[in-house]
Amino acid sequence: MPKRVDHEHRRQQIAAAVRRIAADRGLEGVSLNEVAAEAGISKGFVQHYFASRDDMLRFATTTLRSGLEERITAAPPEADPTVRDLLVALLPLDDAARDDALVANAFLVRALKDAEIAGHFRTGHGQLRDAVAAMIAAARDDGDLLPTVEPATEAGLLLALMSGLGDAVLLGYQTGEEAVALIDLHLSRITATPRKTP
Amino acid sequence: MPKRVDHEHRRQQIAAAVRRIAADRGLEGVSLNEVAAEAGISKGFVQHYFASRDDMLRFATTTLRSGLEERITAAPPEADPTVRDLLVALLPLDDAARDDALVANAFLVRALKDAEIAGHFRTGHGQLRDAVAAMIAAARDDGDLLPTVEPATEAGLLLALMSGLGDAVLLGYQTGEEAVALIDLHLSRITATPRKTP
Repeated sequence: MPKRVDHEHRRQQIAAAVRRIAADRGLEGVSLNEVAAEAGISKGFVQHYFASRDDMLRFATTTLRSGLEERITAAPPEADPTVRDLLVALLPLDDAARDDALVANAFLVRALKDAEIAGHFRTGHGQLRDAVAAMIAAARDDGDLLPTVEPATEAGLLLALMSGLGDAVLLGYQTGEEAVALIDLHLSRITATPRKTP
Repeated sequence: MPKRVDHEHRRQQIAAAVRRIAADRGLEGVSLNEVAAEAGISKGFVQHYFASRDDMLRFATTTLRSGLEERITAAPPEADPTVRDLLVALLPLDDAARDDALVANAFLVRALKDAEIAGHFRTGHGQLRDAVAAMIAAARDDGDLLPTVEPATEAGLLLALMSGLGDAVLLGYQTGEEAVALIDLHLSRITATPRKTP
C-alpha cells in the first residue's frame, strides 16, 4: 500500500512543520503559506492533505505526545526509571522537551474552544496520569513512598506541579536546577523513612 | 489634563478588547480589524494609540495582573486571608479568573520571544511570589506551618503548582473541587501539628 503510507507520511511531515512553527511563534504563525514553506512543499499540496486549517491543527494535536513518550522510553530498560526520573523527563530541560512544552502551550487556548483537540489533550493526560500513578503505586508498595500516598490523587498533583514548573522554566521564573530541586522537595515529603536493614 | 487622561483611558479600553479576544481565541484572533470591532472604535483610532500590533500586545501585557490583584484584595480587610485563601483565589473558578488565566496562556508563547513581555511576566510573578512568601513566613512564625518551611522556596513551589492546577481546571483534567482538594493535600504536608493549648 505505498500510496496509503505516503499519504500518512505527508500528513506527519506537515504536522511536524505545524509543531515547529507553533513552538517558534504560536498558532498565530500557523498559516497555509507558512506551513507550506516550513514543510518545503506547495500550498496546493498542504490543501490536498488537509481540507482546512482546523483539520490540520486537529491532526497536529494527535502527534504532540510522541516526543515525550520517546524521551521517557529512551531510558535503557535495565535502568528501571523511578518516579523522579519520569518527572525530570517532563521538564523542558533540552531543546526537544522545550519545543514539546511550547507546542502544548500554543495549543492550549484552542483546546478550550475545540472539543476534538480538548479530547486529544485529555486522552494524553489520562495516559500519562495512569503511567505516573502505576509508578507511584509500585514505589509505595515497595515501601519507598508513604503508605498514605494515594496513587491517582498524587499523580494528578505531581502532573499539575510539573506543568507549572515547565512553564516556570520556560519563562525564567526557575532555572532547570531549581525546578529539579522543587521536585525533590515535594518527593521528600511523601518518601517513607528508610527501613532498617535487618 | 483631560487629553492625557483620555489617551490613557483609550489605551486601557483597547487593551481590554485585546484581552477579551485573546481569552476567547488566542493571540491568533488579535488583528487590527478584530480589536477595533471589539473595542467599538475605528481601525484608524487603534492605530492612533498604538504604532504597531506588537506595541499593542506589549501594552496589553502590562494590564494582565490587575484582575488578579483586585480579586485578592477584594476580601474584606478583617478577613485576614490565609495562604490557602490566596491560592484558591488564583484558581480559574469563576469567569473573571478563567479569563485572566486564558489571557496569560495566550501570551505565554509570545513572552518567550519578546524580552519586554517576558519582563512584564517576570515582574508580575516576582511580586506575587514575594506576597506568597511573606504570608508563608508569617504563618510559619505563627506556628501554623512547619519550622522547616523556607518561604521563598515554598512560594515558588506553590505558584508552580497553582499554575499547573489552573491549566488542569481549564482543560478539564481536574474539577475546581478536586483542585482545591489538591491544594489542601499539599498544605497538609507543611502544616505544623496543632499546638496544645496550655
